[in-house]
Amino acid sequence: MNYEEVMKLALERGFYFPSCEVYSDANAGFWEYGPSGVSLKNKFLELWRRELIRRDGMMEIDGSQIMSKSVFEASGHLGNFADPIIKCTKCNSTFRADRTIAEIANIEIPESADLIEFDNAIKENKIQCPKCKGDFSSTKKFNMMFKVGIGPQEEEAYLRPETCQSIFVDFPRLFKTMRGKLPLGIAQVGKSFRNEIAPRQSLLRLREFYQAEIEVFCNPGRLDDVEKFAEIEKTVIRVQTDGDPISMTCKEALESGTVPNKFVAYYLGILTEFYEKTGIDVSKSRFRKLGDKEKAFYAEVAFDFEVETTIGWLELVACNYRSDYDLSSHAKMSKEKFEVMDNDEKVLPHVFEISMGIDRSLYTILEHSLKNDEEHERMVLSLKPYLSPVHVGILSLVKKDGLKEKTDEIFLNIKRKYDAFLDHSGAIGRRYRRLDEIGAPFAITVDHQTLEDNTVTIRKRDSMEQSRVEISKIDSILFDSVGFP
Amino acid sequence: MNYEEVMKLALERGFYFPSCEVYSDANAGFWEYGPSGVSLKNKFLELWRRELIRRDGMMEIDGSQIMSKSVFEASGHLGNFADPIIKCTKCNSTFRADRTIAEIANIEIPESADLIEFDNAIKENKIQCPKCKGDFSSTKKFNMMFKVGIGPQEEEAYLRPETCQSIFVDFPRLFKTMRGKLPLGIAQVGKSFRNEIAPRQSLLRLREFYQAEIEVFCNPGRLDDVEKFAEIEKTVIRVQTDGDPISMTCKEALESGTVPNKFVAYYLGILTEFYEKTGIDVSKSRFRKLGDKEKAFYAEVAFDFEVETTIGWLELVACNYRSDYDLSSHAKMSKEKFEVMDNDEKVLPHVFEISMGIDRSLYTILEHSLKNDEEHERMVLSLKPYLSPVHVGILSLVKKDGLKEKTDEIFLNIKRKYDAFLDHSGAIGRRYRRLDEIGAPFAITVDHQTLEDNTVTIRKRDSMEQSRVEISKIDSILFDSVGFP
Repeated sequence: MNYEEVMKLALERGFYFPSCEVYSDANAGFWEYGPSGVSLKNKFLELWRRELIRRDGMMEIDGSQIMSKSVFEASGHLGNFADPIIKCTKCNSTFRADRTIAEIANIEIPESADLIEFDNAIKENKIQCPKCKGDFSSTKKFNMMFKVGIGPQEEEAYLRPETCQSIFVDFPRLFKTMRGKLPLGIAQVGKSFRNEIAPRQSLLRLREFYQAEIEVFCNPGRLDDVEKFAEIEKTVIRVQTDGDPISMTCKEALESGTVPNKFVAYYLGILTEFYEKTGIDVSKSRFRKLGDKEKAFYAEVAFDFEVETTIGWLELVACNYRSDYDLSSHAKMSKEKFEVMDNDEKVLPHVFEISMGIDRSLYTILEHSLKNDEEHERMVLSLKPYLSPVHVGILSLVKKDGLKEKTDEIFLNIKRKYDAFLDHSGAIGRRYRRLDEIGAPFAITVDHQTLEDNTVTIRKRDSMEQSRVEISKIDSILFDSVGFP
Repeated sequence: MNYEEVMKLALERGFYFPSCEVYSDANAGFWEYGPSGVSLKNKFLELWRRELIRRDGMMEIDGSQIMSKSVFEASGHLGNFADPIIKCTKCNSTFRADRTIAEIANIEIPESADLIEFDNAIKENKIQCPKCKGDFSSTKKFNMMFKVGIGPQEEEAYLRPETCQSIFVDFPRLFKTMRGKLPLGIAQVGKSFRNEIAPRQSLLRLREFYQAEIEVFCNPGRLDDVEKFAEIEKTVIRVQTDGDPISMTCKEALESGTVPNKFVAYYLGILTEFYEKTGIDVSKSRFRKLGDKEKAFYAEVAFDFEVETTIGWLELVACNYRSDYDLSSHAKMSKEKFEVMDNDEKVLPHVFEISMGIDRSLYTILEHSLKNDEEHERMVLSLKPYLSPVHVGILSLVKKDGLKEKTDEIFLNIKRKYDAFLDHSGAIGRRYRRLDEIGAPFAITVDHQTLEDNTVTIRKRDSMEQSRVEISKIDSILFDSVGFP
């Protein structure tokens, strides 16, 4: 299904919708998760914890979103995290210089170029405001961080543009108090904030968004000393250096030099295994190796994990080898020690980062799972049962004759443990359709026979197959089917 | 245990610590959760979902933290959410006017009083700056919301000071698309932000903090029409109107008029049952009925759920009957319709709010769970097993003779499903002590006998009792013990 159909589902079935939508001053780039979206997100994160954090023995922290100015002086964001913008002198509209030039004159100028290059391109190609044909002022840098003032003195601080900065700043304490050993993964899930000039496409370019970032601290001299490599050496990943993406095992990726070392190969392997379990079609994925002009300012080697969707390749994860860029910057700025002992060697760790966009991942899961079942005239969201916002619908065929009470009783017994949705009203077919659309793998219906023999009808979402089971078996059926793999 | 001992534990065992602590411009009022804190928080929230959200059939949403100006014009926060402050004309230090006057001259002026009252009190009592003895400028209002500018035009927006505003603004869409019926609870967990003049006591007065808020929308004409009341009528709550807190059943609270209706009594009942399961000693709790001067500007009736700690009574939850204050303000400002149908009646719902401070709740759980076991010279964090950051420690007695490999194998089999901590080094007694301090209910030790008969020693945290069990039984022991009730 395409972007518009996913959006329709999202709005109608409580996955996501615009923030502050009742107000005319609602800003673009802010979206809310509704009940179905929250449930899907929580389950996605539980899977992430199982398949990456606990699997690898990582730590997870949860730091402040507002951080001090020094942090971003050291990280380089105050100096470098800016877009080139141009403003129309007539209508005051603002645009990204690089994008406007690319769209109108078809000239590609990297966003990090000198500002004079944009000005020259605008002059030479007589580029004018797309809205009113006015002239543009000269190009300026616009920092994408949101500034806030702390306390009555309004001390300068910023909403973090990436979650990882707290991981770097907290590293010395965590390594020491939690008895860390290299390699050590430290992870964080949370909101980040970027004041985008042109937010768009709902969850795909937000000003306030969710990241799940993992920073793996390692000894740069021991990147091929990875015991756990054996776990994933046969796992197939798809890598694109130039030309088309090629499927290869992690071992082949390593031996062909496509991936620089065992350490990086291991994490690309477990990341692919994670995404396989989300239900995303990983045969439509690629780790795209970035060229020097594309990489973030802190990255030495970078692979973007991208997945093909109906609106093109979407970057879901940035895998950056950040070297000691961050720790040495923070060490210098703060004058604190960031070196640690690795066996008998004193090292300033290097960092490999797995920076995941949660919102985009959820969008992609929805797009890859939503199916138009033409034969049965229904839309089906074929989510993995452990990710479904609702595990089971509990329905009474009719409300009367004591069926409502019996249905309530079944609901009462499972509602704390499973995400169950109780529904007493409407035609049964329409109730099934709604459950199909939010991805509930099961529907249980209570009818008159239930009162006689304590059995219910259980209907499976994908096959639409129905069978009768005893009420006492419901718990074990759900337990076996909706638990994490 | 007291505040200092909890703080020591928090810093040493990775529960929480100050944000940006390596930098000299770190701002007060910002704290990070370390690995133990994140794990405890996630489990606390899972319990909250089970005992309040799923139990009551509520919806959960997750909205933007940055919201438009109109939202806070309507909510009253732009006008009313301000503290009276005074600034020293000599050293520029800023203080809360009401607190400074209370501390120096022992005069209580409510924070909502006219500014002239503070100025008069300062003049009459010759109050000077506690730092430098300078004179104060006249009292000003300081709005506690953080302002941010959106986009290159810097459109005025704010970090939300409470999570509930998105629930109110999103109510019409949610009620319609999710087929809502009154009474309907809508909940949200997330960060809120308040620019406190004097943040203090780590998690207890933060500028960036976690709330779990529930807004129950109801028909004000049907507040005694609550079927579920029977579930909690015998549940004991402690209520303080004037005088000491009195223990009574929810039924008694209702019949004596202490609580105004079945609707409010039901939620006070399930809230108490929830806190009982967190391990907080609810015999040290009270619902304190607030007087008119203490209530928030939007509250018609208010009970604070407070718990006794070594630093006094702590407010963990504010229960406010907000009437139609919020929905009618947003309806007026946005010109959207907020009325819904309740059976055949068109109503603008009233709202009862259960606004929980997560950080304070976690602090209180830690304080009530931390014990000094003098007999065995150890500190024990006797958390409920389902809330423990680590469910089980997996230890090798020594690393050699294949014990390390056997231990790793056991760890590998359970690490995705349980929070397990693998530990190969140090004296076994010290490793047990550390596990006791992070509240791990079990420790499993692999020794030479393990290699012979596939049994391990399992040690219980509270009793320190040790017994041998077969490796194949570990999963079922953990499953039965650390699952949610």
